[in-house]
Amino acid sequence: MTYCLGICVAAGIVFASDSRTNAGVDYASVYSKMHDFKPAPDRQFMLLSSGNLALSQEIMYHLRRDLDHPGRLGNLVSVRYLFEAAEYVGKVCLAIQNDHRAALHSSGLSTEITLIFGGQIAGEPHQLFLIYPQGNYVATSSDTPFLQIGETKYGKPVLDRFARFDMSLADAAQLSLVSLEGTVRSNISVGPPYEIAIYAKDSLQIGRRFKFEDDDPFLDQLSDAWHRGLSATFQNLPRYPW
Amino acid sequence: MTYCLGICVAAGIVFASDSRTNAGVDYASVYSKMHDFKPAPDRQFMLLSSGNLALSQEIMYHLRRDLDHPGRLGNLVSVRYLFEAAEYVGKVCLAIQNDHRAALHSSGLSTEITLIFGGQIAGEPHQLFLIYPQGNYVATSSDTPFLQIGETKYGKPVLDRFARFDMSLADAAQLSLVSLEGTVRSNISVGPPYEIAIYAKDSLQIGRRFKFEDDDPFLDQLSDAWHRGLSATFQNLPRYPW
Repeated sequence: MTYCLGICVAAGIVFASDSRTNAGVDYASVYSKMHDFKPAPDRQFMLLSSGNLALSQEIMYHLRRDLDHPGRLGNLVSVRYLFEAAEYVGKVCLAIQNDHRAALHSSGLSTEITLIFGGQIAGEPHQLFLIYPQGNYVATSSDTPFLQIGETKYGKPVLDRFARFDMSLADAAQLSLVSLEGTVRSNISVGPPYEIAIYAKDSLQIGRRFKFEDDDPFLDQLSDAWHRGLSATFQNLPRYPW
Repeated sequence: MTYCLGICVAAGIVFASDSRTNAGVDYASVYSKMHDFKPAPDRQFMLLSSGNLALSQEIMYHLRRDLDHPGRLGNLVSVRYLFEAAEYVGKVCLAIQNDHRAALHSSGLSTEITLIFGGQIAGEPHQLFLIYPQGNYVATSSDTPFLQIGETKYGKPVLDRFARFDMSLADAAQLSLVSLEGTVRSNISVGPPYEIAIYAKDSLQIGRRFKFEDDDPFLDQLSDAWHRGLSATFQNLPRYPW
């Protein structure tokens, strides 16, 4: 399984992902699910992937190959708007799923790949999309500034509470780490290292990228402080006369 | 959808359930999912149900009918152990699903009913079971003292953190309300009124039963205090130099 999320705020976009992949619980590995595309000076894209690892890798190979040898669908340089980029990525993703559908389904395996895709093209606003396995997509809004893929439910309550379009990039990065950490506590199929990338609006490049290993001391501090705060809150709740 | 949970601690059992049922978002109603069975002085059972409302109701009718007219499977008075009661309930539940499977499947509907079942028979320990749609069951343990059915993921992190076999019944009741309230915030298919019942070990009766309506002032206080505590915790987390 996987858990990736993106938060699109006024100041830019935070991308976050876990790194656990598994084919059954006895074949768990570590792969980055965060893919940085900087195909031209006037644009920056980031892609997070959830689903079959082989198909996810094939999508990244095709997107990069298309930069050198554009096909019928164009490429990440020929698109003029971010939504065109999302459409192009969705079409590549769907074509690859279609290629492998019969073989994978005959083995009882799913071909579904879900992507988070965001970034900016110079002169356009920064944007964040979720691309469905069917190739269509939705964007965030100022009311709903986050998107999640994979094992999304455990980490959603904290986003519902605190994700706001006007929060700072640092707060959004902090929040994404809390959402990841809370998910890992409840689901063993999601795991570190966690990767977090911060895109500042109009910078046209991923300015900061962080990787937190399992034994990262900050992660321990954060996790302890969060747990202590929740415990104190729970202990101090108004008491019902049960 | 539904969210029900039970917490089995040393001092007894807490049962908690939401009351929203729906057949599509435009046909949402309120039904209790908490069913009290006190069929003889030496025993007390409680049943929480998740799944098709018609089938859930049919199960309760059959269990009560069997008390007057025991069939081949016996009834809640003839069982000698709590696990036998769980087996009996599982068989009734499976038989009813089988009765309706062809018709419901032909309409694209699921027959799956999942139950939480707990209580005590005099001279035996108090116990809590989850009964699967297939009729088999698992019990809680001192390591994992809670069970959930329905829309379980949103409310699980708080249980993972705080549910302990040695917590008081009052703390367990408080925790179950927090878990319910957190779920409702993230999922519109779960909703109040919330029902909470407390079974004190060896009492052989449900001593206390509570119902919290949407506009219950205590629910508002609890929800506000929880949100304020989480917000303060989030604001005071150790800061990473993002």
